[in-house]
Formats: sequence, structure tokens, C-alpha cells
Amino acid sequence: MGKLDYQQAGVDYSKIDPLKILAQRAAAATAGNLARHGFRELAASRGESAYVIDCGDFHLASITECLGTKALVADATRSLTGRTYYDQIAQDTLAMAVNDLITVGATPISVHAYWAAGGSGWFHDQQRATDLVAGWQRACDACGVSWGGGETPALAGVVVDDRIDLAASCLGIVRPKSRLTLGEHLAGGDTIVLLASSGIHANGVSLARKLAERLPQGYGTKLPSGALFGEALLVPTMLYSPVTEALAAAGVVPHYCANITGHGWRKIMRHPAAFTYRIHTLPEVPEVLRFLVQQTGSDDREAYGNLNMGAGFALFVAAADAERTLAVAEAQGVRAWVAGRVEPGGKQVIIEPLGLTFGGDDLHVRA
Amino acid sequence: MGKLDYQQAGVDYSKIDPLKILAQRAAAATAGNLARHGFRELAASRGESAYVIDCGDFHLASITECLGTKALVADATRSLTGRTYYDQIAQDTLAMAVNDLITVGATPISVHAYWAAGGSGWFHDQQRATDLVAGWQRACDACGVSWGGGETPALAGVVVDDRIDLAASCLGIVRPKSRLTLGEHLAGGDTIVLLASSGIHANGVSLARKLAERLPQGYGTKLPSGALFGEALLVPTMLYSPVTEALAAAGVVPHYCANITGHGWRKIMRHPAAFTYRIHTLPEVPEVLRFLVQQTGSDDREAYGNLNMGAGFALFVAAADAERTLAVAEAQGVRAWVAGRVEPGGKQVIIEPLGLTFGGDDLHVRA
Repeated sequence: MGKLDYQQAGVDYSKIDPLKILAQRAAAATAGNLARHGFRELAASRGESAYVIDCGDFHLASITECLGTKALVADATRSLTGRTYYDQIAQDTLAMAVNDLITVGATPISVHAYWAAGGSGWFHDQQRATDLVAGWQRACDACGVSWGGGETPALAGVVVDDRIDLAASCLGIVRPKSRLTLGEHLAGGDTIVLLASSGIHANGVSLARKLAERLPQGYGTKLPSGALFGEALLVPTMLYSPVTEALAAAGVVPHYCANITGHGWRKIMRHPAAFTYRIHTLPEVPEVLRFLVQQTGSDDREAYGNLNMGAGFALFVAAADAERTLAVAEAQGVRAWVAGRVEPGGKQVIIEPLGLTFGGDDLHVRA
Repeated sequence: MGKLDYQQAGVDYSKIDPLKILAQRAAAATAGNLARHGFRELAASRGESAYVIDCGDFHLASITECLGTKALVADATRSLTGRTYYDQIAQDTLAMAVNDLITVGATPISVHAYWAAGGSGWFHDQQRATDLVAGWQRACDACGVSWGGGETPALAGVVVDDRIDLAASCLGIVRPKSRLTLGEHLAGGDTIVLLASSGIHANGVSLARKLAERLPQGYGTKLPSGALFGEALLVPTMLYSPVTEALAAAGVVPHYCANITGHGWRKIMRHPAAFTYRIHTLPEVPEVLRFLVQQTGSDDREAYGNLNMGAGFALFVAAADAERTLAVAEAQGVRAWVAGRVEPGGKQVIIEPLGLTFGGDDLHVRA
């Protein structure tokens, strides 16, 4: 089978980025509007995964994030097994927002759901709708957030018929303010702790869909373990806020956090400063990602540069906090690895076990 | 030309509502999660247009809203005139969120943009992308909000090719808390002040699109004034937050507010209690709405029950504040009318000049 890459799979970051940069600059220019409300933004949060406003006694953090195309996998797999998987899809969507929000040190407090369907008929499928609602509620409870409301438009002509565009916006507080993790304390000698992913999460799904089209059995293809490819893809994204909340309760304040999503392990060097991130230990790669990498003929650079490869979230902590961080994560049922360390030096991620290096030029997330 | 109605135009509220009610109940069940953060929700805000959390010194309000299908009108009209109109579409999108947020008495402080395109190519059209960004920034400045960030996914297979799903989430504060307008002070004798709309806003657009399909000249049809139908539809939604902020500065706290969107003037009876809303004065109807009503053969019940018919926002104020409310609105460049009064009695909207009554059964916005 021929090689598949991201450009073929329909995600062309080079086309998105110019608008993104234009928008980032225009957005930054509006910051002064906060002054009339007696607030101010933390400018360092621009370009980070959540926006932070100083409200005096505490900071507010906010974010809007979208699921992407993972619901298409659920739709296709449902036709094989009869399950809707929208309970899991709901968790994925919430995780997109929550896992970004917590990177700045915020406790998520409330969310809004955005469910835009291709037509009113979407909401008429009772099993699917019930699963979506139940999964969303469960994920809110798991994260300790209040589900404040949402929007359920029917957008024929904008959203594809019988499809749904799912997104979530999340509000959080940073309190005490010392929990803020915008990265000013990141330093050489810090330890990189990686938290286990549960599978593909919601990143690399376009590639997986392209692969499913080419497999004779599609989503029904059996992985070595016997799991169906479609069902393995649909294992929901981990919710990491129980770990970050437990860390705060244990008195551990990370120096920085990165949610490993688009751009895969290149996100490890998300922090704006020039540091070298030297990885000595790799987490176990979930079977579905091993299968995806093997079947698409991806090399290590493509795999680790685009997929989570077993690490869904990176915590950068003082070396003295590393073991405690592991223990706190494991107590929350999340596997964790002391995977590497931060060093002074040029901006790069060096993955020693693979002899692989990503340079600073490989990641552009800021204007 | 035959009659066109909402069901034909693809918006079937009877199909959306059961899921909405299921979701509202599940969402309400998550409210207890706020306790662990030392916050509590204002339960009365559920079913209102924005969600409100008591944070001690002030309330926080939040909302996520979507534009709907109005961008399709921009796309079609662009092919006639060469303008993209996405600067105006940006204002429409922001207005959907801001005009809802302010109904609870909140000052909007920050927004996130959600722009989900049918593919990376959408962002490659430089004029359209530049207009979208510029219009968004301008609308943020007009409302005094900081544009905190956003999401610009490319969702081939979910969003229709070369289309875009636009939404906004908005965060606001209610401070002092006495600015809260969840409606506990609404009373018989209050005055209903209506604020002028600029045109169709973003409500009734499916019907307008259906009409355009049936007109021989489509969006190029000339209205009596000479304006093109498409361009008249694209006049952007009014941003009402300058009025509500100026009212607060003038010491006028409305007893309740309603954003007149879906369900048109039926939204005037949005408040949960049973009151009779007697309208004695009608605002001027924008030309594009007169044209739409006439061409679709809608009667007054359909027109006022679904469209804004010249009134984009309703303020319910103490009778003693009515004249001052008018003056404040007009000083912000927004026409306003003392249009009616609140009376004890059954839940209904009586539009006297039209001999038209909407009963409480005509509006279902709560579980």
C-alpha cells in the first residue's frame, strides 16, 4: 500500500497559518479594550492554548476548541456495529477544550456546547442524541465543570447533510494566581513528564480516515488484539484536568504544560523561549497508532511530528517534583513517564531513543 | 409566486427542541460541580440567553452562539458584485453572542472566534480572509471586548466545501451585581422599549435564501429603493451593547431584556412568568423585511412570529425610566420606540395595531 501523508489527507497547515497570523495580530490589537473594565490581559497567554485575563483576585482563562472530523469515524463505525459512539465523541469534544484550558494552570469551571448539524433531522435520531447528551454530561462531571448551555443550530448548506460540527468553549479560573503556568519559570534542568494518551485522541483523524478508505475492511479491519480499527480510533480522549487539579492539591505547580495535539511531539517545544527538550524515555505507543503508522508507511519523523504517539499531555516540572508528579498522575489512574529534561540551548526536541530531532523551524504557533 | 414558510425553508424547530430539552436537563444536573470551586450558578439564568455564575464580587456571564446560514448569502452576492461582505458577516457573528450576553445585564469583556471551514482552501482567499478579520476586530472594538483567540479548523466532510461555519463565544461580567437583569423585577406597568434593527439580522435567512432561489434575478433583484436584495440582507446586525452600557452609565437598570432573534416577536414573552405584553406602537419595518414578507406571502402572524420586523432588541424598563431609555439609545445612534407595556394577566403578546395575539403556547424556550 502506498504512503499516505497529511497533505493528501486534506489538512494543509501551510494554507491555514497565514490567516491565523493575521487574526492573531488583529486580536492582540483589541487587548486595550479590557482597560475600560478595569481588567488587563496577560499578553503572554496570546499564542498559548488559552486566553488569560487578570481579574484582581484571580485570573480568568477561556478557550473555544473544536473536535475536528472524528465524528465521521463514529458515523462510519456505527454502520458496522450499531453503536453510535457519540457518548465517546462528546468526551473527545470536551477534552479538546479542557485539555487546552488547563495548560495555563486554570481550573475548568463551566462549558458551553456547540453542536451544529447539517439539518434538523440530525437531532431526530434519538439514540445518537441521547448518547451525545449523556457523554457530555459525564465528561463535565469528570472534569468538575458546570455545563452552562449551548447552541444546537441546524445549518443545511453549511454543514454537510447528516453530519455535525462539534465544539466546546470552556471557562476557567487560575486561583491562587500562583498556579499560573504561562511558562516564566521554565528552566534548564526541569523534568519532562509525559501523560499517557488513550489512543489517537482527535488528532491525526484525517489520516486515519484516509487509511480506512484504502483498507479492504475499512473501519472493520481487525487490529492484532482483535479490536476493530474503527472502535480503536473511537476510544475517547483522556481528560487531564483531574491530574492537574490533583497536582495543585498536592502543591505541585508545573513550570509549563503542553497539550499534545496537532503537530504531535513538536508541541513539546511550544514554549516561546529557546530550550532544548531532550527525551530519553518513550511512552508505550497505543496499538491503534502503531497500526496507523505502519499501514500509512509513516517514518518516525512523520509519526512523532504529527501524532501523540502515546503521550497526550506534557508537564514540565522542577526536577524535585518529578517523582511526586508521577505518583499524583498514577493515583488518578493516568500512566506517566519521566521522559526527559529541559536544557539550555537551541530550540529543539531531541528524541534520543529514535535518533530524531525537531528544530524550532518545524513549529509555528505564534505570529 | 406560491407561499414559502419556515418548514419548507429547512428550519424545523419541532425536530430540534426534544434534544434541546434533553440537553437542558442534563446541563442543569451538572450545576453542583461549581460548589467545589466555591462558586454557584444563578439557576434562573438557565433558559435565559446567557449563563451566569456568582463569583462573589461580581457575576460572570458566558455564551456561545452561531451565525447560522447568512454566510451563504454573502457567498452568492459576492458573485454578483465582487465584494466579499465578510467584514459584515463578522459583525453579524459577534452580534449573535454579544446581543444575547447583554440580556442578563452583563458587560461583554472578551470573545473567542470559531471559524470552521470546509477545507484549508477557504483560508486561501486573501480578500475574504482579510475582510473577516478586519470586520471581527472592528466589531470587537465597537463592543469594547478583547478578542482572546479562536479556532480555525478545516473540516472537509463535516463543513460543506468552500463554506464556513461561524460562531462566537463571549464572556462578560455583571458588576455591580445590581446590574443583573434576570427578570425578578419585571412587573405590570413596566414599559416596553424596542430598539431598531438594521434589517434581517441573522434570523429568517433560510427563508430569504429560499426566496432568492425563486426570484428570477435572485439576490440581484432590486428593491424599490434600488438596493440589491442580497446587499440589503447583508446589512450587518446591530450591536446593542453600546446602548446597554450607556444605560448602565446613566443609572438605568432594565427589569428584563430580550434579544429578538428566532421566533421573532414571540421572544417578547421570553420571561418565565405570566405577563401580558401589550404593544401599541410598531417600529418602522426595514425595506428588506417588507420585501421578504410580501414576496413570500407571509401574513402578519408568520412575519411577526418569526422575524424581527424592525425591532432587534426589547428593553423592559420602569415606566419612569422610559423616556431616559429612549434618549440614551438615540444618543448611541440607535432608534428606539416606547412600544407598549407589561400588564398582569395571561402570558401573551398582543400587537394591537395588527389585531394580533401570540399566546404562551406559541413559544417554548425552556425545559
